[in-house]
Amino acid sequence: MGRGPGNGGAEWIRGAGRDADVVMSSRVRLARNVAGVPFPNAAKREDRRLVVDMVRAATAEARPAESTLWVDMNECPPLERSVLVERHLISKEHAKGAEPRAAVISGPEEWLSIMVNEEDHLRIQVMRSGLCLSEAFAQIDAVDDGLERRLTYSFSPRFGYLTACPTNVGTGMRVSVMLHLPALKITGEIDKVRRAAKGMNLAVRGFYGEGSDAVGDFYQLSNQTTLGKSERDLLDDFERRIVPEVIDYERHAREALMKKRRVVLEDKVQRAIGLLRHARMLGADEALQLLSHVRLGVSLGVLDGVDVTGVNQLILDTQPAHLQRVAGREMDQSERRVARATLVRERLAE
Amino acid sequence: MGRGPGNGGAEWIRGAGRDADVVMSSRVRLARNVAGVPFPNAAKREDRRLVVDMVRAATAEARPAESTLWVDMNECPPLERSVLVERHLISKEHAKGAEPRAAVISGPEEWLSIMVNEEDHLRIQVMRSGLCLSEAFAQIDAVDDGLERRLTYSFSPRFGYLTACPTNVGTGMRVSVMLHLPALKITGEIDKVRRAAKGMNLAVRGFYGEGSDAVGDFYQLSNQTTLGKSERDLLDDFERRIVPEVIDYERHAREALMKKRRVVLEDKVQRAIGLLRHARMLGADEALQLLSHVRLGVSLGVLDGVDVTGVNQLILDTQPAHLQRVAGREMDQSERRVARATLVRERLAE
Repeated sequence: MGRGPGNGGAEWIRGAGRDADVVMSSRVRLARNVAGVPFPNAAKREDRRLVVDMVRAATAEARPAESTLWVDMNECPPLERSVLVERHLISKEHAKGAEPRAAVISGPEEWLSIMVNEEDHLRIQVMRSGLCLSEAFAQIDAVDDGLERRLTYSFSPRFGYLTACPTNVGTGMRVSVMLHLPALKITGEIDKVRRAAKGMNLAVRGFYGEGSDAVGDFYQLSNQTTLGKSERDLLDDFERRIVPEVIDYERHAREALMKKRRVVLEDKVQRAIGLLRHARMLGADEALQLLSHVRLGVSLGVLDGVDVTGVNQLILDTQPAHLQRVAGREMDQSERRVARATLVRERLAE
Repeated sequence: MGRGPGNGGAEWIRGAGRDADVVMSSRVRLARNVAGVPFPNAAKREDRRLVVDMVRAATAEARPAESTLWVDMNECPPLERSVLVERHLISKEHAKGAEPRAAVISGPEEWLSIMVNEEDHLRIQVMRSGLCLSEAFAQIDAVDDGLERRLTYSFSPRFGYLTACPTNVGTGMRVSVMLHLPALKITGEIDKVRRAAKGMNLAVRGFYGEGSDAVGDFYQLSNQTTLGKSERDLLDDFERRIVPEVIDYERHAREALMKKRRVVLEDKVQRAIGLLRHARMLGADEALQLLSHVRLGVSLGVLDGVDVTGVNQLILDTQPAHLQRVAGREMDQSERRVARATLVRERLAE
């Protein structure tokens, strides 16, 4: 693969860090706007251009990370944009549209990304492997400080940071974790978790984010309210109380499977690796579901010869844009199914 | 396995003979009744006992095959009876009931079986591998002659052999083939074959015979009318015209898959072997379906390291009674699923 956005490794792929058996990744995101310029949805083309230039200059000066890649979205080919979406570095919406907008991808390992002129002027994101919200917050806080020294943010002493959507007003922060909950799915307890999460005003989304169903037992859990709470309170509550409760629940389900329904568990895991090693055509959703069961098997030590990093890497690399980038050309769905199966077979060969 | 009915190999398992890529086995069956004794459904217990004794004596004298095992159904344990059903040596109905009835299992390789007091006093069957109806007919004709020298059959010069069910009157003969039609299933053309068969007054049944759905792409095709045609005409029409037409149709479908949809074909075959080699629980129908795809792959040379005989043997050995006989005990459905998966893994290990 050549140099370009999304060509390095992603930090979360490592599958390391605290509670990484259940928590794929942690994300903290801040919404910020430049004072005196209309929010992107109300901004004129010149305003948006201005914001892009201001952020570019501020980023160049602040040097928020070791390496920083500036991506002008208007010059970025559609396939590359989709790669960034699949890597959770920009949103689907940000990949669309023709208005001036940009993305900053920073590393090593893409731990930082900034969308410029998405719903807000700046959407800053730090993504890390495992349950790692406090550390991610410390990182994003430093980045935010560095930028705030060079940009005047839209801020109200009464409400806090002002944002395009009222649900983000206040801290402008959203925290989320990508959870892997295969055992709760197998035992059928997942619906209880979903209901409980909704009762706590948390959003539960699928692997592909907003509007996506839970495919392959991956669930993105995020806070919904940002107004009226401090960043630390929000984060502590999420990291120390809510997420650990879900983790415990999943681990209990895994233990129960290991003790009482071992053969059911092994059947799922073995069927998954058998299909992945043999299929000649694989759909994206099927691949994700099978990789989920393999990941479970690796976590529980019932599957040898495969490691979590390899599985995580496949979860990323089997997505449509990633497949096409490796192939160096656009492929229709049936070509992708064949390419996906081929890639998976090669990587998981015994 | 100890000695007993159904403990030897079955001839059709070899997967040899003419057109054996499509024709699993050929069967010819004759319905005969002893003159002067009511048909079994109308017979008293003493009548049935008498028929059993007469056939036993006639068989002992006629020695229709190299080895002959006499099975008194009333003394045969339920599991052993089910084994005989699974081997297509007796019918489900014959395995049930408490009235005096018997079975003759003759070999080598169980090519001959006789049910005594099923719907008719005698149901003589010859089963062979591949498309082999003429030879099977010659064999059954000789067996029939040998028995007729020692038993007086119920016969009408006008109607021919009299049978309990009017559809069998005449020759008393039924011919059938077990066909393996996976390609027609994959291409969706199987329904045309079913309709055409019904149009020709042929019965299309599943692998388990009367009342069973087609599972695993195995279809039993048999003639329906026996009255008003000679045995040779019936048999020739079936063996030389009807069955070859279906065989051609299936082979064309296989060729089309090989040429135009090779990846679809290989995907089915590889997924099947992958699941069979990895699953920890396997239902009977799923196993049969997967073995069907593996058999197709072997026939077409797209799967190495597996042979048709091994696949045929698994088709037989993965059935419930066979599994339990090997285990030496009764097993509930979930135990059987585990035992089936274990057996399949061992046999198909790379």
